[in-house]
Amino acid sequence: MNNQPYIILVNPQLAENVGMTARAMMNCGLYYLRLVNPRENHLSEKAISASSNAEEILQKAEVFATLDEAIADLHFVFATTARRRDMIKNIHTADNAAQEVNTKIAKNEKCGILFGPERTGLHNDDVAIADAIIEIPLNPEHTSLNLSQAVLLVGYEWYKTQIKVESKQLITNKTEVADKKTVTKFFEFLESELEECGNFKSDEKKPRMVRNLRNIFLRSELTEQEINTLYGVINYLTNNQNNKS
Amino acid sequence: MNNQPYIILVNPQLAENVGMTARAMMNCGLYYLRLVNPRENHLSEKAISASSNAEEILQKAEVFATLDEAIADLHFVFATTARRRDMIKNIHTADNAAQEVNTKIAKNEKCGILFGPERTGLHNDDVAIADAIIEIPLNPEHTSLNLSQAVLLVGYEWYKTQIKVESKQLITNKTEVADKKTVTKFFEFLESELEECGNFKSDEKKPRMVRNLRNIFLRSELTEQEINTLYGVINYLTNNQNNKS
Repeated sequence: MNNQPYIILVNPQLAENVGMTARAMMNCGLYYLRLVNPRENHLSEKAISASSNAEEILQKAEVFATLDEAIADLHFVFATTARRRDMIKNIHTADNAAQEVNTKIAKNEKCGILFGPERTGLHNDDVAIADAIIEIPLNPEHTSLNLSQAVLLVGYEWYKTQIKVESKQLITNKTEVADKKTVTKFFEFLESELEECGNFKSDEKKPRMVRNLRNIFLRSELTEQEINTLYGVINYLTNNQNNKS
Repeated sequence: MNNQPYIILVNPQLAENVGMTARAMMNCGLYYLRLVNPRENHLSEKAISASSNAEEILQKAEVFATLDEAIADLHFVFATTARRRDMIKNIHTADNAAQEVNTKIAKNEKCGILFGPERTGLHNDDVAIADAIIEIPLNPEHTSLNLSQAVLLVGYEWYKTQIKVESKQLITNKTEVADKKTVTKFFEFLESELEECGNFKSDEKKPRMVRNLRNIFLRSELTEQEINTLYGVINYLTNNQNNKS
């Protein structure tokens, strides 16, 4: 069972835009493309070149003469539209629609998402066919997106539901964040070097200065490699100091 | 005080891409563009045409000779990059970065977001200059985005933090969802019509059928206008029935 929504382009005008849509789909891990009555050949050189390594999606794309045929085997269909229509329908944000798609798919219901032709967007009759609308939240004074960008935003929201990424993470590559024993040992080394060169002007000021210095380095979550780098830096600086004096 | 991040294009190659970036920025309500050593004129006809009504952003764009100059007055800088570098840095998802930007701006700290040149992305030295990295979560087998699309995704996440939209809403246009009194009256009318024409085959089956019918219409959250439409439909059907018999 396919676990993805079908991306359905209704009357796309330019092969290049179909190619760019395939590229945007691949960015988002979406592979199922349906075309309703495309004006140009979606396997033209232009289309394939615009797809930038997503030719596979173009090759597997299904072409239909009418929208009714393109959605016949689906169970739930979203229409994307930037302008409000005089229709009583549920409107979802792109992220909410992505959740809905997953809920349907989990029940073995196939979902499709309709995108209209480049200049005009979906015809009212095509919007009417859909179960619900996706409205991408954008600056109301400038909602015009090109076709592939609309697919990219909707696809991006869907892709985000498929993965688990830490919203913030420290990449440490081959080294690792040092444990507290290692960090404390480094602090003590630094402080003894500073003591020796007379940096702590008075015993009274020392505790505060030690805390301030420790805070600078603690915010960095130092790795083992970085602590070694800092040992080297301090040794070099103190040797320099010795050489100068 | 400017409440937006600065979008900083480092060595952009094609004027057309700068124009498309301006368009994507306007989609997301972002107006502050900085260009570092652009190869082509960002006010060329090509650029302005590609910006599709976002010429204002191009006209106001600031041009700098070096990245250092472009970020000199900023307090926190993100670098966007699709591939991992051999650097120990915090990586944020685009949505988390948007929150961070807002937190900084609320403290009167100016934020910038760096985007690299089209083919190569940011040079390691430019990534090193940044305080943190934004990595847009995308299909790891196909992360290549064009410049304006990368700006669009990062901008979209920021725009979402600026607005309050219901994730799902029923648009009813000029009519309103009917109150329960109105809905119940309609149900009673429908059921009495069905009673009359013999639709409820037995008294035993009737309660279940009534419940099933009511559920169909309740899921639609009918508006007043739609209830009037349904009254018309039923009256028409029953008259037809009468005419036939």
